[in-house]
Amino acid sequence: MISVGVVGATGYAGGELLRLLLRHPRVEIATITSRGHAGAALTDWFPNLRGETDLRFSEPQVENLADCDLAFFATPNGTAMQMVPQLLAAGTRVIDLGADFRIKDVKVWSQWYGLEHACPELVEEAVYGLPEVNRQAIRAARLVANPGCYPTAVQLGFLPLVEQGLVDLDHLVADAKSGASGAGRQPKQNTMLTEVAESFRAYGASGHRHLPEIQQGLARAAGRPVELTFVPHLIPIIRGIHATLYGRLLDSEVDLQALYEKRFRDEAFVDVMPPGSHPETRTVRGINVCRIAVHRPDPGRVVVLVVEDNLVKGAAGQAVQNMNLMFGLNERVGLADIAVIP
Amino acid sequence: MISVGVVGATGYAGGELLRLLLRHPRVEIATITSRGHAGAALTDWFPNLRGETDLRFSEPQVENLADCDLAFFATPNGTAMQMVPQLLAAGTRVIDLGADFRIKDVKVWSQWYGLEHACPELVEEAVYGLPEVNRQAIRAARLVANPGCYPTAVQLGFLPLVEQGLVDLDHLVADAKSGASGAGRQPKQNTMLTEVAESFRAYGASGHRHLPEIQQGLARAAGRPVELTFVPHLIPIIRGIHATLYGRLLDSEVDLQALYEKRFRDEAFVDVMPPGSHPETRTVRGINVCRIAVHRPDPGRVVVLVVEDNLVKGAAGQAVQNMNLMFGLNERVGLADIAVIP
Amino acid sequence: MISVGVVGATGYAGGELLRLLLRHPRVEIATITSRGHAGAALTDWFPNLRGETDLRFSEPQVENLADCDLAFFATPNGTAMQMVPQLLAAGTRVIDLGADFRIKDVKVWSQWYGLEHACPELVEEAVYGLPEVNRQAIRAARLVANPGCYPTAVQLGFLPLVEQGLVDLDHLVADAKSGASGAGRQPKQNTMLTEVAESFRAYGASGHRHLPEIQQGLARAAGRPVELTFVPHLIPIIRGIHATLYGRLLDSEVDLQALYEKRFRDEAFVDVMPPGSHPETRTVRGINVCRIAVHRPDPGRVVVLVVEDNLVKGAAGQAVQNMNLMFGLNERVGLADIAVIP
Amino acid sequence: MISVGVVGATGYAGGELLRLLLRHPRVEIATITSRGHAGAALTDWFPNLRGETDLRFSEPQVENLADCDLAFFATPNGTAMQMVPQLLAAGTRVIDLGADFRIKDVKVWSQWYGLEHACPELVEEAVYGLPEVNRQAIRAARLVANPGCYPTAVQLGFLPLVEQGLVDLDHLVADAKSGASGAGRQPKQNTMLTEVAESFRAYGASGHRHLPEIQQGLARAAGRPVELTFVPHLIPIIRGIHATLYGRLLDSEVDLQALYEKRFRDEAFVDVMPPGSHPETRTVRGINVCRIAVHRPDPGRVVVLVVEDNLVKGAAGQAVQNMNLMFGLNERVGLADIAVIP
Repeated sequence: MISVGVVGATGYAGGELLRLLLRHPRVEIATITSRGHAGAALTDWFPNLRGETDLRFSEPQVENLADCDLAFFATPNGTAMQMVPQLLAAGTRVIDLGADFRIKDVKVWSQWYGLEHACPELVEEAVYGLPEVNRQAIRAARLVANPGCYPTAVQLGFLPLVEQGLVDLDHLVADAKSGASGAGRQPKQNTMLTEVAESFRAYGASGHRHLPEIQQGLARAAGRPVELTFVPHLIPIIRGIHATLYGRLLDSEVDLQALYEKRFRDEAFVDVMPPGSHPETRTVRGINVCRIAVHRPDPGRVVVLVVEDNLVKGAAGQAVQNMNLMFGLNERVGLADIAVIP
Repeated sequence: MISVGVVGATGYAGGELLRLLLRHPRVEIATITSRGHAGAALTDWFPNLRGETDLRFSEPQVENLADCDLAFFATPNGTAMQMVPQLLAAGTRVIDLGADFRIKDVKVWSQWYGLEHACPELVEEAVYGLPEVNRQAIRAARLVANPGCYPTAVQLGFLPLVEQGLVDLDHLVADAKSGASGAGRQPKQNTMLTEVAESFRAYGASGHRHLPEIQQGLARAAGRPVELTFVPHLIPIIRGIHATLYGRLLDSEVDLQALYEKRFRDEAFVDVMPPGSHPETRTVRGINVCRIAVHRPDPGRVVVLVVEDNLVKGAAGQAVQNMNLMFGLNERVGLADIAVIP
Repeated sequence: MISVGVVGATGYAGGELLRLLLRHPRVEIATITSRGHAGAALTDWFPNLRGETDLRFSEPQVENLADCDLAFFATPNGTAMQMVPQLLAAGTRVIDLGADFRIKDVKVWSQWYGLEHACPELVEEAVYGLPEVNRQAIRAARLVANPGCYPTAVQLGFLPLVEQGLVDLDHLVADAKSGASGAGRQPKQNTMLTEVAESFRAYGASGHRHLPEIQQGLARAAGRPVELTFVPHLIPIIRGIHATLYGRLLDSEVDLQALYEKRFRDEAFVDVMPPGSHPETRTVRGINVCRIAVHRPDPGRVVVLVVEDNLVKGAAGQAVQNMNLMFGLNERVGLADIAVIP
Repeated sequence: MISVGVVGATGYAGGELLRLLLRHPRVEIATITSRGHAGAALTDWFPNLRGETDLRFSEPQVENLADCDLAFFATPNGTAMQMVPQLLAAGTRVIDLGADFRIKDVKVWSQWYGLEHACPELVEEAVYGLPEVNRQAIRAARLVANPGCYPTAVQLGFLPLVEQGLVDLDHLVADAKSGASGAGRQPKQNTMLTEVAESFRAYGASGHRHLPEIQQGLARAAGRPVELTFVPHLIPIIRGIHATLYGRLLDSEVDLQALYEKRFRDEAFVDVMPPGSHPETRTVRGINVCRIAVHRPDPGRVVVLVVEDNLVKGAAGQAVQNMNLMFGLNERVGLADIAVIP
């Protein structure tokens, strides 16, 4: 059994992680923490877990976590980096669901996140936890930077094209849409049902934190920098990301369907749909699957449609996938749910 | 008073038109028709109109409509073209909310709509009813082709750039999203709440009927053909279109905000929002306004955000605006509602 | 022109009031106030009002309001009672959309609202602003206590039965459901879209503040106390109240449909629907109408279905209706909108 | 392994049943049928099952089903009774998710369902499949009538009171609300998102088919007839039933919380919540749990709040629970999912 701790378990990513871990046959949840809610029952925050657990929050302290084999951080950006050095020193491996270790260029990270980094030396060591790219490195990692929700969808959708040099890397467009859980559980006026239901809007059209993360990943796949326009939007639903990706094809002869099917043939959690498909976010609600469809509206252009659950393949599910890799388990263990439709 | 008839008034565009016309101070509704529902009360189909009217549907017959000054067609594509020649001959002017007269190239029209055109000679005469482009011609028109919902939003958003030659016309992208009322009132499995709520998806990624209409309008503005990738999506809300437009700037010095403000300065129904804005579809719900915000995420690229109500500025409201022009009224008459928030 | 001030205009009732007042032909908005947001533009809080007004908030001060003919309070409970005595002394009439003056028994009020009353002597003078009951008194009132949202729906639905002594007054049941705007605009976890969408729940099943208000009104109509079980529920929509009322009929011969039609025959804002109807909240969205249908599932029992918009007939619209009465206008002025469907 | 067939698997109850059966460790799905869609892949109708199964529909024929140990009918009312006699004769046991065998009084059944019964002799044999009442009989049954969605919630909520004679059986009220999946998958205007979203309404206020089923069950528990007013409502969500039950207490001293906890202490799928709770439908989305909270707003009255997923504990999940009983398995097998929140 893997003994795990979850730091920051009152938020959506943390709660989703616990839903998955409670059913994971190889995991023992040793401790869950929440600054400010120590003593409260997990089920007070997640009533769906009634009858499943009597876990209570404790204060996030290195001592408690250091006994675990693995600590997950589902905390606001800037929190994990304060505790990770001590945990690694104590032999506890770490998966950070936040952004602290995602961007290799610490200066860029500081610009976008408005913080000075507490342990820049660990940023280099951290493995970017996208298994479809970094599987081998993840297996051996002490510290995994779990990807952001948008970056997971956008990278998976562009990767086959970018890796093969099939699109103009100076003019990529990612029009992305997310359900409201992507904004977190902290109440704000712009997350109230009364303000966002029956409406639709973009945000961050002039710049969003996930842009450098996406560009870093695509640049690594391409072997050169890429230029991407990325605009996120808020869908008035709870969960789900839909990314619509646009590119100019450099090779108008390539069989795009075959390219995608081959690239993801051995991937348990990427579903390349049949030609002409339009994936729906509801088909991945609550599960660790990313579905992709590729279209060519005219010979010179490609449109890729990608869906995922922002809290599962975009956060907690991918974290469990990474844990499975890190501890030598089959990648699918604990991730076999079927989405509920309707 | 303008005596009007509305053909096809059981659908959403027709019902919305009647809501507006019932409050229009210069309009007298002479007849409303519905094939198959003659005799039924309008309020059976639109319970919001209870207490406002006792209109009943009659069969759509040229004789009844020929007494009107103006006939609106809110009918399935292919219906209006069967009756319009006789009505024009009888001196009744026509606004078609359908697509029969929108595409000047009748061959292209037939390809996309799968019908042979019944009166190609009238296609040339028809005026495309986008007042922000064709105001003078609309005033004099006998026959107005009211624009499609997506084409209204996408054209208004791109026009300032395209008219001034500021963007690369070979690589335009329009990622558009619409509420479910855009799919009409005919029940289908994919318009059921149980199938579309709490989900998001694209449709028509390989081609959509509104593409040639948009390209025709932008080409006219540009004086040359344009290449556009257009992907529509379904938002699980009732009303509202959000178009996110992407272009490569040819002139990185231009003041985009000033360009848009100047272009639409005298337009009653186009609201250019302050720099940095993200318009919300709810702010135009039920009203004839198109709101636009322009962003430049980096020097070489432009992102334009456009919202409208697909049934108002995208259909019935624009039809009333066109009627006002055709009959010498102030364009704003009957179109002064304020959107309801929250 | 009536010169009005609106106190507390950043909330939903206040914003809705301003939407209505901006179109009211006999009103001049002299001042709007918001503690803590003085200087901000009204349109920052209500983007639907862009282009309609350049009003800005000022601090709520008696001096400014004392110049108005009428002050509306759309403030948290306990605020109006601090300023009303001075305003009345200055000759400014008042409509309080909050609960400060609704309950005649000040002790009962204090128990439910947890406050000591600042001006109990004015509670007696205040006229309960339900025009269908108190029309004459409202015309002459200096101070009107605008009814709560649930109390408006439940009283209107029960009144014909209670006034005529047709139901067992010891066993009334009101099962009421409200959209989320009834919870106000203050962000809390339980008003987030992510927490309330795609779900349904009751609240206050053991007791709710609107119970004594309803019982007071029904008791006055009955001439004796009534016993009511009242359970409110949260519908995951923005606006709308649906009250389902249950009673035991004492007279199994009465023609319920005729009773309701006669009771509300002269009421502009109460629509008694045809037998067998099931009113929908969407038909009253944004308008000042209450629709009622009466059913008799078996000879001894009655079920009354009532819908209203909680922010209009349940708050701001009724306040305008009361203003019209107080200032000798036709009750319908400024309240002629048609609901938007779909 | 239990070999099962599912008749009518294109609808919501059938699809949900297959989602559960595909993960059930003791079940082998031998055949799925759909009149009119033979040959189609199950995943065309339920895209959430992509990658889980390659089942295709066959025509519903007794021969195929007669090889199964168990046949589930998830068909329109009136279908199962045509095939059940032959299947039972062939030794295949049956669970009917429809209403054909629920009402013991065949005349009453015919009145409400508008059909003549094809095998009234089997109605008497059929066991009503509410395990919390009929567990022993279900174990031995050849034919189980799976309860309706509303009847499951209303009966479970009233049972402790009715069994103990604690409420006035002549004046029960059940105000019930259901998500739109309760209306089935056949497209109709009143199930379109555009018609039901952002709205709320009752239906069947003068009488609903589930009333006699509920009354039959409660009468059996009480040992005498009961009088119930039952009004269903449509919530604009996909799944979930909330029943709010009202009763007059005959004994004002009884400890209601203890009563409910004791009654359901050994029930795996009934969760009696702590005092003061308000259960949310989202907490049972996709799972076979019924949560109940009991309130006493004043000494003489009781309010019971009940939630379930209409497609799980109200249909397919309860059917699996019944299957487990019929085949000697632990009742919980295959029913251990956790609801997804948010």
